Amino acid sequence: MSESATDTSIYQSAFMTELLRQIKAHDQYGTHDGWSAERLLEPFFRKREQGAAGCTIDRASLLRVTTFYQALAVLIEGECGQMASLVVNINEEGFGRVLLLVGRLVVLDKTVRDAGRFGFATPQAMQAEAEKLLAVATGLIGKFPEAAKL
Amino acid sequence: MSESATDTSIYQSAFMTELLRQIKAHDQYGTHDGWSAERLLEPFFRKREQGAAGCTIDRASLLRVTTFYQALAVLIEGECGQMASLVVNINEEGFGRVLLLVGRLVVLDKTVRDAGRFGFATPQAMQAEAEKLLAVATGLIGKFPEAAKL
Repeated sequence: MSESATDTSIYQSAFMTELLRQIKAHDQYGTHDGWSAERLLEPFFRKREQGAAGCTIDRASLLRVTTFYQALAVLIEGECGQMASLVVNINEEGFGRVLLLVGRLVVLDKTVRDAGRFGFATPQAMQAEAEKLLAVATGLIGKFPEAAKL
Repeated sequence: MSESATDTSIYQSAFMTELLRQIKAHDQYGTHDGWSAERLLEPFFRKREQGAAGCTIDRASLLRVTTFYQALAVLIEGECGQMASLVVNINEEGFGRVLLLVGRLVVLDKTVRDAGRFGFATPQAMQAEAEKLLAVATGLIGKFPEAAKL
């Protein structure tokens, strides 16, 4: 019981709140209206088999990657007060690169392999990863404020 | 006569030489063996109609964009001694963004519209554009050497 209480509170972190906002923004027809945070985020924690070689990546997987990094972009914007721009360069087989740019600075540079399986073991793992990436990004902006302002 | 002599000499610039090397590298089957620089570069100076809305971009146009910026990347590498990484993010309709990254620095950030028509009026115009972009890129690396080294 106490464990499920912890699970719910993690969905109220700044990152999770923004991620949920991003997910809802893509729900154009309100199909997921009234869904709980747990249900909306469930696809991020689902276990997936490795995709067969040559398989085309599905739209839902690409959206998981995009919403995760877009939520991070919004948090970075909140921290530094400048626009963070997301570049998702993933090919049809789910391999590629994700970049977050602030001014002339690359604040995040991730190689993506098998985007069809993009996800995390637990909400805690996702929150920890987001916090780590956010700390690196804001650290870079703090170190090179001029390049970030260009 | 004197004009055509000038036209030929421009193909010997560092940028044009590298661009020709990039174009030849994509000619896997040697289809263009023995072609002159002028003939190989001709597609960059061809006049094109605006593509119809919804048209899918052709492979040759995408290659023109890629080889142009890849040649620039090699010149930047030569100037600063660090790897320059090219990100071409162009959608099927030919719209998108081209980035050149050195370390954590975005040394080139170009919005591409209608990549199907990517080209230049003359070799001189292309050379001038390449030199301008190269100057901006090396200027940024000179200004933020630490970020470029990350």
